[in-house]
Amino acid sequence: MTQPRAILLVQCPDRPGIVAAISSFLYRHGANILDFDQHTSVDNGGAYFTRLEFQTDRLDLPVEDLERAFALDVARPFGMEWRLTLSSQRKKVAILVSKHDHALLELLWNWDRGDLHADVSTVISNHPDLRESVESFGVPFVHVPNSRDTRAQAEARMLELLEGKADLVVLARYMQIVSPELVARWPNRIINIHHSFLPAFVGADPYRQAYDRGVKIVGATAHYVTAELDAGPIIDQDVGRVSHRDAVDDLKRLGRDLERRVLARAVRWHCEDRVIVNGNKTVVFS
Amino acid sequence: MTQPRAILLVQCPDRPGIVAAISSFLYRHGANILDFDQHTSVDNGGAYFTRLEFQTDRLDLPVEDLERAFALDVARPFGMEWRLTLSSQRKKVAILVSKHDHALLELLWNWDRGDLHADVSTVISNHPDLRESVESFGVPFVHVPNSRDTRAQAEARMLELLEGKADLVVLARYMQIVSPELVARWPNRIINIHHSFLPAFVGADPYRQAYDRGVKIVGATAHYVTAELDAGPIIDQDVGRVSHRDAVDDLKRLGRDLERRVLARAVRWHCEDRVIVNGNKTVVFS
Amino acid sequence: MTQPRAILLVQCPDRPGIVAAISSFLYRHGANILDFDQHTSVDNGGAYFTRLEFQTDRLDLPVEDLERAFALDVARPFGMEWRLTLSSQRKKVAILVSKHDHALLELLWNWDRGDLHADVSTVISNHPDLRESVESFGVPFVHVPNSRDTRAQAEARMLELLEGKADLVVLARYMQIVSPELVARWPNRIINIHHSFLPAFVGADPYRQAYDRGVKIVGATAHYVTAELDAGPIIDQDVGRVSHRDAVDDLKRLGRDLERRVLARAVRWHCEDRVIVNGNKTVVFS
Amino acid sequence: MTQPRAILLVQCPDRPGIVAAISSFLYRHGANILDFDQHTSVDNGGAYFTRLEFQTDRLDLPVEDLERAFALDVARPFGMEWRLTLSSQRKKVAILVSKHDHALLELLWNWDRGDLHADVSTVISNHPDLRESVESFGVPFVHVPNSRDTRAQAEARMLELLEGKADLVVLARYMQIVSPELVARWPNRIINIHHSFLPAFVGADPYRQAYDRGVKIVGATAHYVTAELDAGPIIDQDVGRVSHRDAVDDLKRLGRDLERRVLARAVRWHCEDRVIVNGNKTVVFS
Repeated sequence: MTQPRAILLVQCPDRPGIVAAISSFLYRHGANILDFDQHTSVDNGGAYFTRLEFQTDRLDLPVEDLERAFALDVARPFGMEWRLTLSSQRKKVAILVSKHDHALLELLWNWDRGDLHADVSTVISNHPDLRESVESFGVPFVHVPNSRDTRAQAEARMLELLEGKADLVVLARYMQIVSPELVARWPNRIINIHHSFLPAFVGADPYRQAYDRGVKIVGATAHYVTAELDAGPIIDQDVGRVSHRDAVDDLKRLGRDLERRVLARAVRWHCEDRVIVNGNKTVVFS
Repeated sequence: MTQPRAILLVQCPDRPGIVAAISSFLYRHGANILDFDQHTSVDNGGAYFTRLEFQTDRLDLPVEDLERAFALDVARPFGMEWRLTLSSQRKKVAILVSKHDHALLELLWNWDRGDLHADVSTVISNHPDLRESVESFGVPFVHVPNSRDTRAQAEARMLELLEGKADLVVLARYMQIVSPELVARWPNRIINIHHSFLPAFVGADPYRQAYDRGVKIVGATAHYVTAELDAGPIIDQDVGRVSHRDAVDDLKRLGRDLERRVLARAVRWHCEDRVIVNGNKTVVFS
Repeated sequence: MTQPRAILLVQCPDRPGIVAAISSFLYRHGANILDFDQHTSVDNGGAYFTRLEFQTDRLDLPVEDLERAFALDVARPFGMEWRLTLSSQRKKVAILVSKHDHALLELLWNWDRGDLHADVSTVISNHPDLRESVESFGVPFVHVPNSRDTRAQAEARMLELLEGKADLVVLARYMQIVSPELVARWPNRIINIHHSFLPAFVGADPYRQAYDRGVKIVGATAHYVTAELDAGPIIDQDVGRVSHRDAVDDLKRLGRDLERRVLARAVRWHCEDRVIVNGNKTVVFS
Repeated sequence: MTQPRAILLVQCPDRPGIVAAISSFLYRHGANILDFDQHTSVDNGGAYFTRLEFQTDRLDLPVEDLERAFALDVARPFGMEWRLTLSSQRKKVAILVSKHDHALLELLWNWDRGDLHADVSTVISNHPDLRESVESFGVPFVHVPNSRDTRAQAEARMLELLEGKADLVVLARYMQIVSPELVARWPNRIINIHHSFLPAFVGADPYRQAYDRGVKIVGATAHYVTAELDAGPIIDQDVGRVSHRDAVDDLKRLGRDLERRVLARAVRWHCEDRVIVNGNKTVVFS
């Protein structure tokens, strides 16, 4: 990741000539394509999705001008939704957490060793417990108590704290419903880890639900948060095998590993601009 | 599996002395224990489950007498539900199928090569399509048409056909609801393969449901059939990874592999007396 | 797969402008790109690999002329190795087998239900055992005995039988070394299934080797056959978990499932032109 | 784990009456068996392995006397190797590490949250880098420099440091060969994490080896250390899928997750007395 590069995400109605238009435009302006991934969906009359990485050190014009030209020459004629990100622009990530530290620590470890192409700007919790763990990574920790009586206040405080601090909000086992305002403010930019294989076991205490149902496999699901509980676009899932020997606590222990792994992967993919939301699904160029 | 052996399945309330009672009884009567598996569940105040395999060639009394003695000396004092099966007693298996042949063929092929410790007695279908495939294995095929008007007749015919022919009934992608009479007649002895990761996607067309939800993993579930649709005790499950590139047909193709594998495993385990039903769950000594 | 389409596989030294050149050429000639996958390797000074699927029903010239034009306009300037295949051209597949039927039957089942985009032209075996199974699929079976004394003769006979009958040769548990002539005649077009996780357990009786080493996971590997035993480019691998409870026969039973799955996948990918050989590795656009 | 309990590990030549002898002995002395696992191996003329957990709060004699009685009444007649551990006796674990922190942190984090039934007594490293990380867990860190010239001295120092401090030594990516003295001093009590799927890629830089071979799956292996490099009894392995898109650094990143998971599992199993070494293999009662 040493060369300066840019990532272009595009989605538009499918029709002939899209690849030629994009690639010729980039070639014309001196951008060498390093990676090119595309997907054509047959749903909804055909939709085209692509992710490109290209070098920017030999561009024949400044990036801002390249963006302006792309909008005019390519995006408009094809009706594209698109986004261009420079590799030098690291996303700001805020993490919301309650008392469980496993998902949080996994993200901080990954970030600390440089595996996460992002900056963790702040950790907010409705409990004070994890302050020391977070601060030992040099990351600010803010405790925002959140009880039935203070909910409105707490939500307002969180919006305020996050403003300007978060391109992405990660719910790393945050055991509170986030407010509709927050969801509306960060559309497709809040990632939650749900501790089950969705859509099985929506809602509270999914490991207990899984235990009671007697499943032989448990899972974890990272998804974007929408207004409807546990129903947003799924980014990644993983599973592990269990047996009659496993009590609820064993499911939880195994589940912690699944949650860590799935959430870290989903956050990494998001931060590397590998995910495009398509209605209630995702296209993941991993 | 060359030596004569027997399998003992036991479940009872947990209390001290069970292992000693069973093993001393067997030792006293000349039965060498080859395999011993147990599980103690904390649910419902503690329950004990065990599966033993022992050699029968040096027993000091006939097996019928051993059973009688076990009932008196061990089972009654401990309040055991139990079942003793000789390795020479192969279970009779009847398979119900519709048009999809993959799960059926997998079972027949496993059986044909001797991997299934059972005898496939008959295949019954509501469609005539798979007659040739089945008969090429030397297994009788019976076509029982099943339309809205003839349902009662068809169900009666099936009960009649299965009577005495089936210690186990396998629904190998049988696309009809089986009658309550049939379920009641073979309690915990009808195995169905559901083409999803239960409890996600109960009901019809689960691959389409999975596609529409945008899951990243699909699954298959083998379970005992109970009165409630897709809600019986789960014997085994397996999963496979999918992506945005996979259309419904791709999920179906991948799913066929999962279904074959899971169903074959569940049927094998049942036929080797490795499964004990515990309420709505299973203990699987695999 | 109902529309007429073509698949283009390309590999060449990496340099700017490749995507633009290919996509513009295709667009100019009326070819709508349906799928576009690329990989840029940093090995050997940078190499570019791509696989494109495009519609051919609106081409402005016959396919032969398109190929000629592509060779001149695009392939030559960029120094490309390339291959264009029409979806209407199904590959001819010959299968070599000995006595184990599992890998063979899996391929024939897949082919029979239309999951394999290819035609199985013939099955050749050094044993007569599987004749009936093969012929029940309507596929010719040829028994070519192969003993120490008749080796040269047998190899000559096989070359003769395969000539014109095979775009791909599949060794579906063929327990003989294939002759150097055969390997040279079908470079990167002979697929073998090795019953271990290569490079562990090269050579004979890998399940026994795995058992003796006490591994906790066993595997299977599909690879192209080269002059060196079990050392050719790997197309796909899969694994399964085992424990101390599993005897060699259990490993074999589990392994059969792995072998079937891995070989079927590798053959399907090859037949859909998804594999490019890059030195001793593969690029698989799956 | 709140009740006082003991774990009994036994291995001996197989013969009738072992289960009865052990379970009757325990029952007679008031020990309620909570968990009972056994394995009978056909290798070497038949060997019997078992692991029992039993409650100790109603024993009719002190544990030392129980041990003495067991030795006389049961172990001697059957020629048993055996070991009895009280749940109150936590093993002392010393960790050796070099510069990579992932495996170390995983162990410390597991230990810190109470998931590891053991006490981490000390961390020793040939580099000073990880001092702060270790000490933040309240665990002593000792830097023992180890160069070609000071090897003998360093090895002597380590033996001295470990003496009395370690029931188990864990090599959590310790990039030095441990001395034969150390191996001899802790037979089957040194666990190493090897960063490949053994026996593939023995020796240095296994991810590079895996990359060069073009495997489609990478793995990690936890094993007991013996005199021969990477050849000791395997406790656990795990794997992950890779593709042509993954560079050596991607394999390393994926591998870190595998290493952490496999090593943590192996250490946990060892500390819970779930592993019996059988020649160059392990029996793992997980």
